[in-house]
Amino acid sequence: MPDTSITRIEAEPGQYGYTFGGREPIAEIKPGTLISLRTLDCFGGKVRSVTDLPSQVCEFPYLNPVTGPLYVDGARPGDTLAVHIVSLTPASPVGISSTFPHFGALTSTSHTPTLQPPLEERVWLYDVDLDRQTVRYQASRSDYTVDLPLEPMLGTVGVAPAASEVRQTIVPDVHGGNLDTPLLGPGSTLYLGVNVPGGLLALGDGHARQGEGEVCGVAVEIAMDAVIVVDVIPGVPTATPRLETDTRLVSLGAARPLEDAFRISQDDLVRHVAQLTGLDLLDAYQLVSQTTEARAGNVVDPQYVMSAGIDKRYLHGAAAYHGAHDQLRAVVRSG
Amino acid sequence: MPDTSITRIEAEPGQYGYTFGGREPIAEIKPGTLISLRTLDCFGGKVRSVTDLPSQVCEFPYLNPVTGPLYVDGARPGDTLAVHIVSLTPASPVGISSTFPHFGALTSTSHTPTLQPPLEERVWLYDVDLDRQTVRYQASRSDYTVDLPLEPMLGTVGVAPAASEVRQTIVPDVHGGNLDTPLLGPGSTLYLGVNVPGGLLALGDGHARQGEGEVCGVAVEIAMDAVIVVDVIPGVPTATPRLETDTRLVSLGAARPLEDAFRISQDDLVRHVAQLTGLDLLDAYQLVSQTTEARAGNVVDPQYVMSAGIDKRYLHGAAAYHGAHDQLRAVVRSG
Amino acid sequence: MPDTSITRIEAEPGQYGYTFGGREPIAEIKPGTLISLRTLDCFGGKVRSVTDLPSQVCEFPYLNPVTGPLYVDGARPGDTLAVHIVSLTPASPVGISSTFPHFGALTSTSHTPTLQPPLEERVWLYDVDLDRQTVRYQASRSDYTVDLPLEPMLGTVGVAPAASEVRQTIVPDVHGGNLDTPLLGPGSTLYLGVNVPGGLLALGDGHARQGEGEVCGVAVEIAMDAVIVVDVIPGVPTATPRLETDTRLVSLGAARPLEDAFRISQDDLVRHVAQLTGLDLLDAYQLVSQTTEARAGNVVDPQYVMSAGIDKRYLHGAAAYHGAHDQLRAVVRSG
Amino acid sequence: MPDTSITRIEAEPGQYGYTFGGREPIAEIKPGTLISLRTLDCFGGKVRSVTDLPSQVCEFPYLNPVTGPLYVDGARPGDTLAVHIVSLTPASPVGISSTFPHFGALTSTSHTPTLQPPLEERVWLYDVDLDRQTVRYQASRSDYTVDLPLEPMLGTVGVAPAASEVRQTIVPDVHGGNLDTPLLGPGSTLYLGVNVPGGLLALGDGHARQGEGEVCGVAVEIAMDAVIVVDVIPGVPTATPRLETDTRLVSLGAARPLEDAFRISQDDLVRHVAQLTGLDLLDAYQLVSQTTEARAGNVVDPQYVMSAGIDKRYLHGAAAYHGAHDQLRAVVRSG
Repeated sequence: MPDTSITRIEAEPGQYGYTFGGREPIAEIKPGTLISLRTLDCFGGKVRSVTDLPSQVCEFPYLNPVTGPLYVDGARPGDTLAVHIVSLTPASPVGISSTFPHFGALTSTSHTPTLQPPLEERVWLYDVDLDRQTVRYQASRSDYTVDLPLEPMLGTVGVAPAASEVRQTIVPDVHGGNLDTPLLGPGSTLYLGVNVPGGLLALGDGHARQGEGEVCGVAVEIAMDAVIVVDVIPGVPTATPRLETDTRLVSLGAARPLEDAFRISQDDLVRHVAQLTGLDLLDAYQLVSQTTEARAGNVVDPQYVMSAGIDKRYLHGAAAYHGAHDQLRAVVRSG
Repeated sequence: MPDTSITRIEAEPGQYGYTFGGREPIAEIKPGTLISLRTLDCFGGKVRSVTDLPSQVCEFPYLNPVTGPLYVDGARPGDTLAVHIVSLTPASPVGISSTFPHFGALTSTSHTPTLQPPLEERVWLYDVDLDRQTVRYQASRSDYTVDLPLEPMLGTVGVAPAASEVRQTIVPDVHGGNLDTPLLGPGSTLYLGVNVPGGLLALGDGHARQGEGEVCGVAVEIAMDAVIVVDVIPGVPTATPRLETDTRLVSLGAARPLEDAFRISQDDLVRHVAQLTGLDLLDAYQLVSQTTEARAGNVVDPQYVMSAGIDKRYLHGAAAYHGAHDQLRAVVRSG
Repeated sequence: MPDTSITRIEAEPGQYGYTFGGREPIAEIKPGTLISLRTLDCFGGKVRSVTDLPSQVCEFPYLNPVTGPLYVDGARPGDTLAVHIVSLTPASPVGISSTFPHFGALTSTSHTPTLQPPLEERVWLYDVDLDRQTVRYQASRSDYTVDLPLEPMLGTVGVAPAASEVRQTIVPDVHGGNLDTPLLGPGSTLYLGVNVPGGLLALGDGHARQGEGEVCGVAVEIAMDAVIVVDVIPGVPTATPRLETDTRLVSLGAARPLEDAFRISQDDLVRHVAQLTGLDLLDAYQLVSQTTEARAGNVVDPQYVMSAGIDKRYLHGAAAYHGAHDQLRAVVRSG
Repeated sequence: MPDTSITRIEAEPGQYGYTFGGREPIAEIKPGTLISLRTLDCFGGKVRSVTDLPSQVCEFPYLNPVTGPLYVDGARPGDTLAVHIVSLTPASPVGISSTFPHFGALTSTSHTPTLQPPLEERVWLYDVDLDRQTVRYQASRSDYTVDLPLEPMLGTVGVAPAASEVRQTIVPDVHGGNLDTPLLGPGSTLYLGVNVPGGLLALGDGHARQGEGEVCGVAVEIAMDAVIVVDVIPGVPTATPRLETDTRLVSLGAARPLEDAFRISQDDLVRHVAQLTGLDLLDAYQLVSQTTEARAGNVVDPQYVMSAGIDKRYLHGAAAYHGAHDQLRAVVRSG
């Protein structure tokens, strides 16, 4: 019987990380154990009012802190880590968003520079109503308000990269990182390939909600109380992050240009479906072509993210990763 | 009271078109009148079995035929055409898909050439069950089958381009064309800017269903009996195609690389939301950032398509194009 | 013996074109005959001083006029047209350049939109000194001047597209068009596939000089007196424009993103070298990899252009297109 | 008087690195001192015959070894390192090239995946003739040979990245890395921004020659005896690598898609020219537009490289980095 008591991980102020890789674990965790932890918002809590401009109160590159890394008992290179998100509860009554000079999809950036001046930097605050499960958009230049559904998610979940690389947490890649997909909320399981002993999982960048593409570059950022449970699938590698919910099997691709993120996600889904169903590669290509959901994660980071998702009903009951998602769901229910 | 009798447009065999622009209208239609017409499948009906390989039975560039163009009474350059899709009924019991040499997102193509040999060309047939509203996927190399929902849509709807251009129907751009978004089904209204007198609307490329991105390049292609109704919004230009359903307001972008299609769709949605709500541009940018759905249309054509959609509830009742969508819905209900 | 008297083509004011395709020929020309004609600058002569802002004095889409089309005797679909540029002489003492709102590589554009305001629109005039073969750059906000070499070229040379398409002259593609490569100067031969009887060649957009990439979107634009001679290579198709000088064999690729333009140009050069030398495809790939020059044409138009060039000395004397370039050079020398 | 005796750096077998960042310096060097060192070929010397296929004899990620890092005395974050290449002499009589599965620009890759099988893996050997300064291309499937000029260069030169990142040596970015530009040969000076104390310079990946774009992914790879001399420009940051020769001032951009590498290089050159000449930004944009050389570095790595170069004659004698290039040249002449 799995141990379903909750283990609390406490990160000390100096323990938050700004990279995947290059850091010592702050704790060791056991597969199958419920883990509770706090994640900071992407500004590290430094933006508290509309006059706290991120470029003034934050210090580059100390953005997008993650909690961790966590050493997962028994995880070895070549394994896969299954990270199930049990619950996400905003740990602040206020979510924050902003424009940020030369960051976002509708502005010139350091990757897509132009000679134009930057957009104005501006901060928006969103009141969170946990009872109604909403966040309130409040325009900055008029009194227009509208309540939006609270749909909590984690923007950044990843492990130490392969090949001794160390990457800023803002970068999404095959090790995970700043994936920024709204699919990564409670009830979903993220699969990440393990590159180093213990995997060295870290997570953060909670969003009270986010549009697909995260076009201005900043979601409704908020500190989050997260409960997760992790499993190790030994001897099964994962080339690019995958994700599973009760109804969807998803592959994620991180790359530029965006069509390459699309290609990576679709190619991986085709190969995964072929492996799970026994379909030959072109038959799987065909099935995926008629059924896939192809949605933007972020289109603002050093690499962009696309997801390719398929309804699990079309897979005749085939279970990804030996049924890891269902087993983790069972852990939660028995907890 | 609008005239809601149905006008039948019959295209003679030689009347199907392979371009937007460069052709004389085959009929004149009146705004507010229900129009019924038949569209051919993208192969022009020439692929009838799994041994009919498109590269052998079809003759380039005679692919993706459209029905039209239709001269819309009163449409003038600078106006917008609102094309409401009332119903789409498969006109064949069998849908067709295929791989096609050097076409699709997971193969090298003429735009993204490599020195590798092409993928195998193969055809799949899908039995349509109108009662159960399904199409049946049947693997070509095993007996794996699965029923998928029938979700009919039109891949290609457009008008004559600006600047005297003539474009193949396979090309999506600001004049519409091969947009290939699953959003373009019954109950949706497509908005297209008018470039020439009468607009010269044409449509075709029915899909029994399609995955987002249309990754293999070919949906479940099928001839379609379509009923549409068209309106003209005088003096209101439309820079890039937009689309509206009962719940969503959507902007479409067509470009390469895919991030530019994303940028175009999001930029247009931001500006549209600003105009409809009175929000200043950065406030609209913020609202869109937290709420947008960003989904792939096709990622296989000479230009790729992304959609940016927002839930109309967040717009405080503001009505796009003076409420054209609701008015066209009313025409249908009174018909 | 070829007829080497010079035939003068005179385009009347109303005869300049803004598209490839969709127009009747203004003259018929014979292969092997020297042809003399005048091309207008890309502004059609309407920008005459630094206060003539293009967005005010020009009318979209009436930009980038071409002289032609010329019906080439004997050219049939499937043939290749060899267009040899004998000489280019500026027909004005002043070249013109400008920034243009939302056009150029270091600004947001209609293809890569942002929410930033456009760059300032500004005009620069360049005095041409034919004796010294220079053009003089004169800063607009200081008295900095510098003389640059006069290196005349044609930005736009093309034929009617395939598949009944009509494209604005600003678009480079497989039919040629706005290629904007500095390689297209006197002494070079451009090879274009013929899509319609007579080919329907048109040319224009003379540049007194241009940087690779044409980063601000506008070269040193100038009306040009051009002498050309054309040949038809029957039964030899050309998939993407190629170019030859006395020392270089070049393939051009037009696409977005820019890596696809690179891929198209390199893929075509590899295949061309394999065909000319008898090398197998991977051997040709290897030879090209170590020797190619890969340079930007324009990175500002609806499609971008890259060139892939190889020194002809590495080809063991193999002659492209049955030696068309040398034969056209001979025509000139005997003229 | 500078110390112009030559300091020899010897890297022990275990001391070669596969990352920028994350490693301790192997030696400390003084600015203004001639440094002699050996670089390995990109295969670490493991490919010795045409039957040594890289995917079999090399172990990922142990490719592209660099010699270093070298701690440069006095270099501090915010400074710029000027790395002048005095001479490059092949340290092997044979250069090596290859195709490599799913690597190169004319094949599908892990970034641009397709369902096609990979190209054949094949090795080519090039005999080096130091007297004639040539390398001999020898086809693998015929007896076609041709001598190509020996044009030695270093593919990979970089420093430790900012923000505690560690990157594989195959990645070009703002810290340098696998830039793969033929401009980086003897007589050129590379400018790199310093991110950590000592800069931590490392270099390798010698090429006997390389085509622009390095289209098959592998140049004529060879171990190299290099002599360099380094200077520190205190208090002058460098945002993206720059390069200077006796005649050219160049900015490099590393990004995907390739147009962003182009934009970064051109944007940086415009700003550099503006700073050096006092021209306002649009005047510099104009001057660069008419004079720039825009050439591909590599179009095969995780990020692509473009160069933007301008003839120094157009800069009225303005000296970049306080004349560092000329001073380093003087060190060499006095050595």
